[in-house]
Amino acid sequence: MTGPVAPELLDRARAGDARALARLLSLVEDASPLVRSVIKDLLPLTGGARIIGLTGAPGVGKSTMTGALVGAFRAAGRRVAVLAVDPTSPFTGGALLGDRIRMQDHATDEAVFIRSMASRGHLGGLASATPQAIRVLDAAGFELILIETVGVGQAEVAIASLADSVVVLLAPGMGDAIQAAKAGILEVADLFVVNKADKPDAHQVVRDLRNMIALGQRAPGDWKPPIITAVAMNGLHDEGISELVSDLDAHWSWLNASGELKRRRQARAREEITALAFTTLRDRLMTNGIDELAARVADGTLDPFQAAEDVLAQQKELRFTRG
Amino acid sequence: MTGPVAPELLDRARAGDARALARLLSLVEDASPLVRSVIKDLLPLTGGARIIGLTGAPGVGKSTMTGALVGAFRAAGRRVAVLAVDPTSPFTGGALLGDRIRMQDHATDEAVFIRSMASRGHLGGLASATPQAIRVLDAAGFELILIETVGVGQAEVAIASLADSVVVLLAPGMGDAIQAAKAGILEVADLFVVNKADKPDAHQVVRDLRNMIALGQRAPGDWKPPIITAVAMNGLHDEGISELVSDLDAHWSWLNASGELKRRRQARAREEITALAFTTLRDRLMTNGIDELAARVADGTLDPFQAAEDVLAQQKELRFTRG
Repeated sequence: MTGPVAPELLDRARAGDARALARLLSLVEDASPLVRSVIKDLLPLTGGARIIGLTGAPGVGKSTMTGALVGAFRAAGRRVAVLAVDPTSPFTGGALLGDRIRMQDHATDEAVFIRSMASRGHLGGLASATPQAIRVLDAAGFELILIETVGVGQAEVAIASLADSVVVLLAPGMGDAIQAAKAGILEVADLFVVNKADKPDAHQVVRDLRNMIALGQRAPGDWKPPIITAVAMNGLHDEGISELVSDLDAHWSWLNASGELKRRRQARAREEITALAFTTLRDRLMTNGIDELAARVADGTLDPFQAAEDVLAQQKELRFTRG
Repeated sequence: MTGPVAPELLDRARAGDARALARLLSLVEDASPLVRSVIKDLLPLTGGARIIGLTGAPGVGKSTMTGALVGAFRAAGRRVAVLAVDPTSPFTGGALLGDRIRMQDHATDEAVFIRSMASRGHLGGLASATPQAIRVLDAAGFELILIETVGVGQAEVAIASLADSVVVLLAPGMGDAIQAAKAGILEVADLFVVNKADKPDAHQVVRDLRNMIALGQRAPGDWKPPIITAVAMNGLHDEGISELVSDLDAHWSWLNASGELKRRRQARAREEITALAFTTLRDRLMTNGIDELAARVADGTLDPFQAAEDVLAQQKELRFTRG
């Protein structure tokens, strides 16, 4: 593949061509050498999408809830993309695939795009590919991008923190408010949904959650995460979805009015730049080598701290000699 | 603490002052701001020590074996230091302390120095502190430095790889040849010791090990790890120790004659420089910030890959402006 492939694919993706979009996403997921030029081309078109993260333990009904949210947004005439990310599995495993099938009622809708991403055995790769996949969907004109993750571990927290609004799902009988608290997910949650609210003990989950939220420090003007009770059942007798949508809209307004959106997106960019700088440095040290410095450290004529500084100082020259 | 503290402490440590040596080690373990000047001062005095790593699952008798080795080296009139490293525990735990007490027969010997290092909850810190602690002991004039680690995990493999000669201990009835194989310890082993060889099934461990070694690719002139059967029991009826010492001497001769010692020490320096460059970069990004670049990435006027390159390119200037 040569030449400026991205602009053409991007034009087609923006016109609604799902295959062109899928190809663009494959380019960024596979960390193709073209990623950089693809991202550069589409960057001016980004920034318009609202990014919503959904996370929670397996079994809380994340995918059913995602499906219900997609339905609500589509009913309001908005273009929606779903990125289902599984940081724990090297392959797109059974659970995620099964979930995708349950969302097939949206599969024939051109304004809905669903994509699964798995870690391919390398979390670092997924962590750097996800922001690029979000940029592609953003540039392709989706107004809403839902990022759904599996589980409530550290990796999920990291990916959830890519979103503008983070929705944490819980369900009764799973003790997962405590589990979520341990993983640090409570701090990143902007909205809580207690799903399966028709089950016994749902009120207990709400009460636990309320107590935990009350413990958090909050300044005047800060956002207070609402707790929404819901029953998501594939579009039939859904409850709480319209409340979730309106709370998400309220959060979006707050993000914009408070300046938090800008602050959050800059913090995210900072994390992304740091991660990419590390990767770039690692790649360069593997290809350009540091053999001369290592030989001097090994024979005791150069201290390792100075060698590390020399390595960093060399990066300026390397940048220009890479052509 | 101001002024050139290291040269004076170093002089005293080289003269056999254990307290001065302990203070130098504390400086490098605590990642004191003085570490760099301490290491610079003592660097010209390093390179003379032979570094021997001992690793194996808990219960194989590592500390008893270490004690027996110390005894053998002392009998030959050599100065020996022991660095007991526990990467899994934030504190110097009971097991290690207990082991240290068992080695107390050497505690009053001025030519033997024993030090425990624990991770203090931060493995990265231990990984960078251990090479510096080795340099301190080397500069202080110890001819032999034994590094003893707990367990057979990835962290232990990383620390074992700091040694010139890596001894892997196994014992019958623990199924740990397989466990060691899984952790990748077989590849880094230069010598195998099957300890507790008086127990039943010791021959089975030797046979398993021999089969696994036979599977490894080896070029002519490569070192073939010997398998030594031993019974280490606190100096009473020790068996196999003199064979281990002579195999270690044979490995040392091979390291020098083959050029492998130089290659190995350079590879270690390369790893150390890379790790220090990462740490330095991380520290600088936290203090100097990348807010301007992050703001441009967030508003879509700069691509994140370019920002990462800019961050690396800035390191040259930062180096000179740090004073």
